[in-house]
Amino acid sequence: MTYCIAIRLDEGLVFLSDSRTNAGVDAVSSFRKMAIFKKDGDRVMVLMSAGNLAITQAVRHYLNHPEDDGPSIWNASTMFEAAQVLGDIVRKVRDRDAEELQKSGIEFNIHLIFGGQIKGQPHSIYQVYAAGNFIEATVETPYFQIGEAKYGKPILDRVITQETPLKEAAKCALISMDSTIKSNISVGLPLDLLVYPKDDLKTNHLLIIDEKNEYFKMIHETWGKRLRQIFSEIEDPVW
Amino acid sequence: MTYCIAIRLDEGLVFLSDSRTNAGVDAVSSFRKMAIFKKDGDRVMVLMSAGNLAITQAVRHYLNHPEDDGPSIWNASTMFEAAQVLGDIVRKVRDRDAEELQKSGIEFNIHLIFGGQIKGQPHSIYQVYAAGNFIEATVETPYFQIGEAKYGKPILDRVITQETPLKEAAKCALISMDSTIKSNISVGLPLDLLVYPKDDLKTNHLLIIDEKNEYFKMIHETWGKRLRQIFSEIEDPVW
Repeated sequence: MTYCIAIRLDEGLVFLSDSRTNAGVDAVSSFRKMAIFKKDGDRVMVLMSAGNLAITQAVRHYLNHPEDDGPSIWNASTMFEAAQVLGDIVRKVRDRDAEELQKSGIEFNIHLIFGGQIKGQPHSIYQVYAAGNFIEATVETPYFQIGEAKYGKPILDRVITQETPLKEAAKCALISMDSTIKSNISVGLPLDLLVYPKDDLKTNHLLIIDEKNEYFKMIHETWGKRLRQIFSEIEDPVW
Repeated sequence: MTYCIAIRLDEGLVFLSDSRTNAGVDAVSSFRKMAIFKKDGDRVMVLMSAGNLAITQAVRHYLNHPEDDGPSIWNASTMFEAAQVLGDIVRKVRDRDAEELQKSGIEFNIHLIFGGQIKGQPHSIYQVYAAGNFIEATVETPYFQIGEAKYGKPILDRVITQETPLKEAAKCALISMDSTIKSNISVGLPLDLLVYPKDDLKTNHLLIIDEKNEYFKMIHETWGKRLRQIFSEIEDPVW
């Protein structure tokens, strides 16, 4: 399985994904779930995916190899247009594969988060469905999750608003991921973390986090310890 | 939807359930999900349920109206036997209803937690499936959840062991429920909480918790506040 989060803040964007695919006991393998498309100074776009890996890779292939002179994420003038390009690609892959997959009893199943910024345009994130349609994050719901989303949702609901500073949001995403990894064996390290300050149009803050990452280790140890501490400080019920 | 938790501890048992059924925007109604079967001084048994309400009520009906001289939870000599009685009832309801439900496109869908104690026997909890089979909680996994289980799982995983005192486990169950209610609109108050000290063979610590319950209000306010506080105390990442 998978767990990916994207957060849209006044200060910028945060993207975090795990890399565990197909975590059966004898089939634990890792594939990057975050793909970055960028032209420094012009546009930065990030795609995170959950669901069928073959469909995901097909979608990424078409993003990377647009038809000559056709609409692409490289010539889109807004993030909305770029999301439409992505939605059209999902539909193209579905038209090619869905019926054949069904013959093998496999559902056409893909969940995508897509976001970034094009120069002079606002930064934004979208959740793109298997039908190729999509929604955009709003003030009320400034984050999207795909995959094993429920374990890590409570901490996001308690902490994140659009005004949360970028670094705090990155910390919160890592705690949300840590809780998910602890409760669900199918989500695992390494993680890809991209923190994007708006108008940066570069990806200077891209981190691959593995078992040796000191900050994640600190979060993992401290959060559990502090949680147990505040838990013990809350008085027990009396009957 | 539903969220129910049962925890088996050295000191006894904790059962907690919400009471929201069918939480569509115009169909919010409440049904108790916890049923208690007891004969003071002899046996205390608790059934919590998620899934199709009609199936649940049919199962409860047969538990309450056993055939004359047939095996029942009232004459079972161990909790294992009582769980078998329950499993057989689930199968009886399935045999009567499953095929008919399927004609209306409805799956035979029920999730049960069953636990308690019979005099002179150990206290225990079971998770009973729609197929009528069941598993028992162990040292490694001292709790069961049914319904919207994922939101509230991380805090259980961080706090609960078999040695956790009863009151602390009740507190932890309430925090787990509070996180679930905050993140999922389909789980709601009032709650039924039963704390059962082993060998008690009575139900003195049964609480119905609604909006006015001071302890739950305190947990709701304090936990969110303290979480945000320890969150802010953890240092931000540096790149």
